[in-house]
Amino acid sequence: MLNSVTDALRAELTSKLPAAAFRELTDAYLREPRGRYQGSGGLLVAPDCTEDVATVVRACADARVGIVPYGGGTGLVGGQIAESGPVPVILSLERMTRIRATYPAENVLVAEAGVILSNVQDAAEAEGRVFPLSLASEGSARIGGNLSTNAGGVNVLRYGNARDLCLGVEAVLPDGSVLHGLSRLKKDNTGYDMRHLLIGAEGSLGIITAASLKLFPKPAGEGAALMVVEGPEAALGLLALAGDLLGHQVSAFELINHMGLDFLAEVGPEVRAPFADTPEWMVLIDVGCVAGVEPSQALETLFEAAAERGLVTDGVIAQSGAQRDAFWAIRESIPEANKRIGSVSSHDISVPVGRIPEFITRAGAALATLDDFRINCFGHVGDGNLHYNVFPVRGKSRDDYDHQRHAVKRIVHDVVAQMEGSISAEHGVGRLKVADLNRYGDPTKLAAMRAIKAALDPLGIMNPGAVVTA
Amino acid sequence: MLNSVTDALRAELTSKLPAAAFRELTDAYLREPRGRYQGSGGLLVAPDCTEDVATVVRACADARVGIVPYGGGTGLVGGQIAESGPVPVILSLERMTRIRATYPAENVLVAEAGVILSNVQDAAEAEGRVFPLSLASEGSARIGGNLSTNAGGVNVLRYGNARDLCLGVEAVLPDGSVLHGLSRLKKDNTGYDMRHLLIGAEGSLGIITAASLKLFPKPAGEGAALMVVEGPEAALGLLALAGDLLGHQVSAFELINHMGLDFLAEVGPEVRAPFADTPEWMVLIDVGCVAGVEPSQALETLFEAAAERGLVTDGVIAQSGAQRDAFWAIRESIPEANKRIGSVSSHDISVPVGRIPEFITRAGAALATLDDFRINCFGHVGDGNLHYNVFPVRGKSRDDYDHQRHAVKRIVHDVVAQMEGSISAEHGVGRLKVADLNRYGDPTKLAAMRAIKAALDPLGIMNPGAVVTA
Repeated sequence: MLNSVTDALRAELTSKLPAAAFRELTDAYLREPRGRYQGSGGLLVAPDCTEDVATVVRACADARVGIVPYGGGTGLVGGQIAESGPVPVILSLERMTRIRATYPAENVLVAEAGVILSNVQDAAEAEGRVFPLSLASEGSARIGGNLSTNAGGVNVLRYGNARDLCLGVEAVLPDGSVLHGLSRLKKDNTGYDMRHLLIGAEGSLGIITAASLKLFPKPAGEGAALMVVEGPEAALGLLALAGDLLGHQVSAFELINHMGLDFLAEVGPEVRAPFADTPEWMVLIDVGCVAGVEPSQALETLFEAAAERGLVTDGVIAQSGAQRDAFWAIRESIPEANKRIGSVSSHDISVPVGRIPEFITRAGAALATLDDFRINCFGHVGDGNLHYNVFPVRGKSRDDYDHQRHAVKRIVHDVVAQMEGSISAEHGVGRLKVADLNRYGDPTKLAAMRAIKAALDPLGIMNPGAVVTA
Repeated sequence: MLNSVTDALRAELTSKLPAAAFRELTDAYLREPRGRYQGSGGLLVAPDCTEDVATVVRACADARVGIVPYGGGTGLVGGQIAESGPVPVILSLERMTRIRATYPAENVLVAEAGVILSNVQDAAEAEGRVFPLSLASEGSARIGGNLSTNAGGVNVLRYGNARDLCLGVEAVLPDGSVLHGLSRLKKDNTGYDMRHLLIGAEGSLGIITAASLKLFPKPAGEGAALMVVEGPEAALGLLALAGDLLGHQVSAFELINHMGLDFLAEVGPEVRAPFADTPEWMVLIDVGCVAGVEPSQALETLFEAAAERGLVTDGVIAQSGAQRDAFWAIRESIPEANKRIGSVSSHDISVPVGRIPEFITRAGAALATLDDFRINCFGHVGDGNLHYNVFPVRGKSRDDYDHQRHAVKRIVHDVVAQMEGSISAEHGVGRLKVADLNRYGDPTKLAAMRAIKAALDPLGIMNPGAVVTA
């Protein structure tokens, strides 16, 4: 059983850490972006070095006080917010913002956990390299949080998830010991992979304080196209064809449903697709090409081959960087339009790529038995990852469906589970999906997770209530 | 404390498993390829399905008898051989050889643990795809062992290690429960990544029984070149240039020292480099190109750019598949030549890629203080992974250095440790490097490994003596 923060713990931390480590606990630290979680309090501590993080963890372990690690606060599953229970220490990484080293010839960069993702991207860019992790909140999310949640984003198809972009981590474990794992090695088979255990553990096994990250050469040229497809099945055919013709030059492959475009027209932001009629389905294809391959030519070749096979009915290839950005603005504005409409329930799910059409059909049919909805289904179809979001029909609001929210989520997640999918593709478990994980997770995996949690965090102080429950 | 196999355990297994699961324990199961480990005995069991593997594990847990998992038997660190201690069950995966499913459109293949690596490659090829894990023992190594040891090989530069080629595993954990993790998902953030914990655990946390593996589109064209470089520093310059000019089309980048060519001339096999004089250093570059890029033209462009920068002094670009094979035959014959010469001590090490030249200088200087040796240093320089092998001078044999073997290994590993490197880059820890891991490993990592081992395998039955010791 954990204790709330005591005066004694406050005094101990005050005596051991510099004054700058203590900041005012504003409401920003207690709110989740969509306002679905509200923390009740905590002692905010922001160490600026690994040793001070270790000091905090040791003191909390001694006092049996929970620690909620806090990065950029952009998580969507409540992993950064403890709503109830004993008052915790909120350990923010916001002052650990150093790029410790860059090794451009090795394509490696070592960043502290508090570096904002876009600053990592910029540091890579300054060395003529790319750090390809890219997602909507990159201007405020911090790399430690990105790693702790194994963030996804738009370039997973080509470069993998956050875990695939990390060579090693430094972390403070629940007993306050420091794991020195900032490896720059591409190959290291000396025992259990602690990096991959901490990545995706959402702070429940320790606090990542720094990471060595993989950089990549910049593509020689980049381009994008919007192609209209009959439906998800044709989109998959186009995806396979793109793989055959362009190989790993395909960076992103995003499915967009007319509902997203309708929402944009209805509530903004003001962006529109470059087609006379709103297409039922379209895909945004982004490519980064090697020298000798001209991006718009490569996309033209793809389009022609796809048209021959009846996979596409219309398409526009970006003729400039500005047009490419305009295509991306459509995709990236959809979440904001969704927010303005107000979803009944949103689902960050994945299924095997080949089963996406079946999923869309089955989930839609299952929901139709409950009520009428508008469904905006879009996302990283190249990764099998859809944001399958369920909205009120016109004239109704989110609140009108309060009584059905739980049933909607259950229906969607049941279909996902029946189809060998994941109820959390890229956002993580946090506190939002603990019950879902317990419901749908493999019992052997859950038992192993609990055993590992108990072994590494026997007092249960690390992000209590997140991911794993006894 | 573990028990030896008893008649009661034999009887129980005989009653629960089909007769075909019991095979004669020939010496092949008790010998490591280089003859450095010799097992003393065991009960050989070869189940042909996951449930039977679970039955064996449960029976062994009840009887507190150790289990040594056995794949293709090609491991080089004694992970598959228990030399001493209570008589174990040797659990061979050789009968679990089904390709359970292929999903070519998804680039996924599901194979049982006993499938021989080259058969996985062939199954991918049959679908017009590539499974890129490639290593010398691919004709006898089994995929379960490749994953358990996180095998490396020649294509890591482009495609990553074995763990990067795996989407999910099915495994029997030490209590006999089955982890159902054969995911085909590219994104799944539902809790701790058990896949990555089991991969590289060398059977000490459970037995991988099947895996879903990533396939890749075939490159549109392939090619290879041998380029002569002044030394390791120039090789790194060439590597960086290749990345800049060819991007991820570079599949392999292997460094070859004249000593390897001298050994080939001295003891065979009869292959030779296509240069009039034996180059001091050369690199073998292999490329797999996208459509629109002609491999030999791309290599020509690279060679010209490298020559302009003074990075290469000579070079030959393969003009045919046969010539490409001939280049690879040089690289792949070196281990055989090494074996014929007989090393004093061999080291599978890695350092940060940029520090390779410094490593070669420092290790050579440190060894020179001990005695005269011939050093054959070659390998996957693109991954920072060298096979740094120390040989007798002409006229002496391996046995003449018996008294120095330990000192040689210590000197090399000390330099590796001082340079942030790994004492086991791709072969694993097994039983050979347990003491080295305890000596050089991060104490926090070692403590966490022991805690995880105790949590998941409290009886210590899984591959006792390998990787982790109390």
